[in-house]
Amino acid sequence: MNPLTVTHKLIKTHLLSGEMKPGTEIGLKIDHVLQQDATGTLVMLELEAFGLDKTKAECAVQYVDHNLLQTDFKNADDHLFLQSAAHKFGYWYSRAGNGISHAVHMESFGMPGKTLLGSDSHTCAGGGLGMLAIGTGGLDVALASAGEPYYVKMPKVMGIELKGQLPDWVSAKDIVLEMLRRYDVKGGRGFILEYYGEGLKHLSAWDRHVIANMGTELGATSTVFPSDEITKAFMEREGRVHEWVALKADIGAQYDAHETIELDKLVPLIACPSSPGNVVTVEEVEGKEVNQVVIGSSANPGLRDFWIVAEIMKGKTAYPEVSFDVNPSTRQVLLRLTEMKGLGPLLQGGARIHQSGCMGCIGMGQAPASGSISLRTMPRNFPGRSGTLDDQVYLCSPETAVAAALTGKITDPRKLEDLYSMKYPQFKEADHYKTSKELLEAPPSNGNGKLVKGPNIKSLPEFEALPDSFASPVLLKMGDNISTDEILKAGAEVLPLRSNIPEISKYTYCVIDPQFYNRAKEATQQHGGFVVVAGENYAQGSSREHAALTPRYLGQQAVLAKSYARIGWQNLINFGILPLEFKTPTDYDKIEQGDILEMDHIIESVKGGKELEVRIKGKNIAIPVTYSISERQRDMLLAGGAINYIKNNRKK
Amino acid sequence: MNPLTVTHKLIKTHLLSGEMKPGTEIGLKIDHVLQQDATGTLVMLELEAFGLDKTKAECAVQYVDHNLLQTDFKNADDHLFLQSAAHKFGYWYSRAGNGISHAVHMESFGMPGKTLLGSDSHTCAGGGLGMLAIGTGGLDVALASAGEPYYVKMPKVMGIELKGQLPDWVSAKDIVLEMLRRYDVKGGRGFILEYYGEGLKHLSAWDRHVIANMGTELGATSTVFPSDEITKAFMEREGRVHEWVALKADIGAQYDAHETIELDKLVPLIACPSSPGNVVTVEEVEGKEVNQVVIGSSANPGLRDFWIVAEIMKGKTAYPEVSFDVNPSTRQVLLRLTEMKGLGPLLQGGARIHQSGCMGCIGMGQAPASGSISLRTMPRNFPGRSGTLDDQVYLCSPETAVAAALTGKITDPRKLEDLYSMKYPQFKEADHYKTSKELLEAPPSNGNGKLVKGPNIKSLPEFEALPDSFASPVLLKMGDNISTDEILKAGAEVLPLRSNIPEISKYTYCVIDPQFYNRAKEATQQHGGFVVVAGENYAQGSSREHAALTPRYLGQQAVLAKSYARIGWQNLINFGILPLEFKTPTDYDKIEQGDILEMDHIIESVKGGKELEVRIKGKNIAIPVTYSISERQRDMLLAGGAINYIKNNRKK
Repeated sequence: MNPLTVTHKLIKTHLLSGEMKPGTEIGLKIDHVLQQDATGTLVMLELEAFGLDKTKAECAVQYVDHNLLQTDFKNADDHLFLQSAAHKFGYWYSRAGNGISHAVHMESFGMPGKTLLGSDSHTCAGGGLGMLAIGTGGLDVALASAGEPYYVKMPKVMGIELKGQLPDWVSAKDIVLEMLRRYDVKGGRGFILEYYGEGLKHLSAWDRHVIANMGTELGATSTVFPSDEITKAFMEREGRVHEWVALKADIGAQYDAHETIELDKLVPLIACPSSPGNVVTVEEVEGKEVNQVVIGSSANPGLRDFWIVAEIMKGKTAYPEVSFDVNPSTRQVLLRLTEMKGLGPLLQGGARIHQSGCMGCIGMGQAPASGSISLRTMPRNFPGRSGTLDDQVYLCSPETAVAAALTGKITDPRKLEDLYSMKYPQFKEADHYKTSKELLEAPPSNGNGKLVKGPNIKSLPEFEALPDSFASPVLLKMGDNISTDEILKAGAEVLPLRSNIPEISKYTYCVIDPQFYNRAKEATQQHGGFVVVAGENYAQGSSREHAALTPRYLGQQAVLAKSYARIGWQNLINFGILPLEFKTPTDYDKIEQGDILEMDHIIESVKGGKELEVRIKGKNIAIPVTYSISERQRDMLLAGGAINYIKNNRKK
Repeated sequence: MNPLTVTHKLIKTHLLSGEMKPGTEIGLKIDHVLQQDATGTLVMLELEAFGLDKTKAECAVQYVDHNLLQTDFKNADDHLFLQSAAHKFGYWYSRAGNGISHAVHMESFGMPGKTLLGSDSHTCAGGGLGMLAIGTGGLDVALASAGEPYYVKMPKVMGIELKGQLPDWVSAKDIVLEMLRRYDVKGGRGFILEYYGEGLKHLSAWDRHVIANMGTELGATSTVFPSDEITKAFMEREGRVHEWVALKADIGAQYDAHETIELDKLVPLIACPSSPGNVVTVEEVEGKEVNQVVIGSSANPGLRDFWIVAEIMKGKTAYPEVSFDVNPSTRQVLLRLTEMKGLGPLLQGGARIHQSGCMGCIGMGQAPASGSISLRTMPRNFPGRSGTLDDQVYLCSPETAVAAALTGKITDPRKLEDLYSMKYPQFKEADHYKTSKELLEAPPSNGNGKLVKGPNIKSLPEFEALPDSFASPVLLKMGDNISTDEILKAGAEVLPLRSNIPEISKYTYCVIDPQFYNRAKEATQQHGGFVVVAGENYAQGSSREHAALTPRYLGQQAVLAKSYARIGWQNLINFGILPLEFKTPTDYDKIEQGDILEMDHIIESVKGGKELEVRIKGKNIAIPVTYSISERQRDMLLAGGAINYIKNNRKK
């Protein structure tokens, strides 16, 4: 047998369909599912629509870490809904204030050798503990929770050898920033990144979490680490050593790509505005004035990451013009920090201690002043993500962040030795920690309670199976690169409506045509539905499922496009909309907005995977259209989407 | 000489004009001024408009405790602006995260025997320390800061004798709730409430703060306490005993009204939705399901108020469906609580620890779930103030709040003894506390720096002196009881623009006429200004100065009304708009919207306090109008408002 990498071992032990051949579809068994609140409400509504009784996952956890500001009733209503849904579907429920999903999952549930699928893009942080952890869209998580495999293209594996040991004032964040410096934000696409080598022995489980977490910024499918003595020590400290298993690459295992990082040579790095890939040495940007420093997020969530800031801050105060914000990653981290007397120095240093959660990392408050520089230990600095349009957000290690908090300027943390006559503080983990699980509610043995739905939470609408024929008007003829933002408006006005399909559907295509909603209602009443026509790369942009769900809700039956963006295309199938492609792209020119398109024998054709024909009513024009989908996807389309597909399967 | 009350002593030592005759105007010397950020930006812009060099107050402090969520750039920009303004005008600056103004002022600045004027309605909390502390509008504070007297009607004094001692599980909040039960929210109007009697000797300075704070909910001008050994002990613990003076009523001092509270007979009380005056015993509403408990605010800010919650919570966890939120009143309180090992039990109990500040008390986050019950140790529960329109907010003591957090229901805290086999915890103050002033910036000795203004902060516009004549159109003819919300729209869309007069003025009268802004611009261009006509009680509602400032900015020269609300009327004068009254109310019917009103010899008439005449152009109708203003107010009107008046005075 071939020697295997850690990645291949994780995949092999969970492979339900396909082969480990890069680029081909594989189906994976999912052990753990993780949901945060911003995506979780829809996942729970999908489980409700499936008619699911209990999750099939070994471990399913609903976290509440995103929408914590509660500027109106919606957040609090969502929390009560999610809690009731967790009870009903047999999930663990991590109450608001318990902390960031990825960090709490690591503290309390993470297990080497398991798969974890989460409706949050940083789910890959679990790789730090020797899991195969992947972030994806909500419906994928709902399907996995219902016991379906998770389908993904088999990735290639990049082996990254770590050599030596990090110098003082350089920490795990600098390692992943170095990867981003080398590969930028797309360099990891199609890969799982697997770290190995003797350098690992100086990296704690939390350090590995930092590196695995930001693998998503490299575009990687996931990041994995072996499970070794350091992993074991972590599990021991958390009182879960019985859940530890060893996991390492076989000698002679082959990687599809290779990389080496010499840790001794690393220096403090920083990602400049406004991309995590825009990495330079801290030295190169030293001296710039800073008005905000934020410590926290899933990218630097470990006790050490807060402790070192407290140690450095001891007896000092944040620079007058700097807002020094600290978001404890988890309640347990804050408790332990408090017991180690680490909170005092932070408070005395002027820290604004916020509740545990994502907070400013996802733009929930903590917006910096106009055009001012904010240094953050977070994973992302896309333009405007902070809440300030002309923001200047830099990403860095806790060491670099606290140096700026003290001096009011971007400062290489190595200079702190001279500036404050101090040595680099050496963190020592306790042998054991007191665990504090008070806010983790176990799944009730007799769940199946009632879902608690505030006025903004509506069950998902039911959809019909695929019709055999239609004669529907073209309500929109669009150009190339129509984004999910144009299909369903983004932003603060619309986001809070994501659990309310009737309400959010009013924003469908409104960016293109403010009258679209009314026209769609009319067309569906008169013709039973409608279609839209687009150019190349339809539905590019975010993975937002609503960009398929709300058009479907309004009656959209098909899209005719020259080509599709990958995730948008998958979402159309998931919600039962035909994603048709022009066989001859120039046929696009033959259709006009307002034309009535006729199609017949759809069911038979889709079943057989046969080409379809679209006729323009009254124009004597016939246009051949294609669609390239797997057998599984055909069944979904025929059923009227993934929800019906699951419902039908469960009835069998 | 007549024996004097504490109130009369405080007034007498600060009386600059008038006599201590209830109902007549007196002018007071102000020692301390206090501003919070939400009102402070406009105050600082007013000081800029005055051309002020340095504040004339002995102690002026700019706090940042209201707008801490930072959902976009505006809050952070405001903080930097306020910090620069504090430096320029010689204020102390309490950085964001340092805590609630009233609590920090008490910790670090409050002094018995001094007057304190603050642009926050709970400024009266300072009365707990033997100060005469009054909350008022921003311009009044700006004037006081510039060295002008504060003018107010001499209040009557109600003496409230406290007898005996509070039973276990009953605390200071219950005393002020008892006052609200007896007097409701208007019963204190025209009064200063002065507490005395042997019951005082068991009430700490912080207990007195609780009672004084919520005097504003009774409608009182202020609340005062004597300064005694307990006050002295407080000052000692804070390292400021040298700033203590004794202050007590003379024997035989007479009160205008009398009240007695027998502390031994008090039971736990609670203010039901949605008025602080809606007070019943906790027992009467026991058993109602609770989904949120919030500890904090200026109404229960003392270390004891958090400590007792921690003590009661020890070893227990908040009920699963309860969000248990803790807003440390000040950073120093959190530090001390942490040092006393009080934070651990809160965190283990599931508390969401938020940054120090007002937070949910002013609707900045922490909105409860739809229609659900929230128990809060805060001072106000007006409908919708929490951010949830159908909220059910109850106000209570920390003891009653934590009882609900534990049981998930409204619970008389006296039942905790049996429920958890516990005794009422007895708080013992330390003899001294370590003080932590890191976030209090002293006024720089060489201030006069530059004001840092983000794009949303604009200097106040300059206004002309009162014209001697005008012929201006009536742009609106309105009915009775026009509120400040109708004059200038309230709400989240408009509030963030309060430091930007050109921008916020676009919302002037828009509730009545969406086209008003354009019509006003046009009228001012064509006629040099405009007037409006109204019925009874014009400009009722909030004290919002913008309801006079923005009409003036657009060119409004006069209001003709049947009568005015008191504060709205004062604001018109402050911003140089003639507040004219129909001598014959039925003349109101003679004017139509669109009429051109002509007035002449205005200056001479106002100088002499003489009646004026308004003629309707082309209609041969003359209408006599009056205005009843003091000499000081005449000068203000003639100058074109208070800002010009101060500027002119400073030039002399």
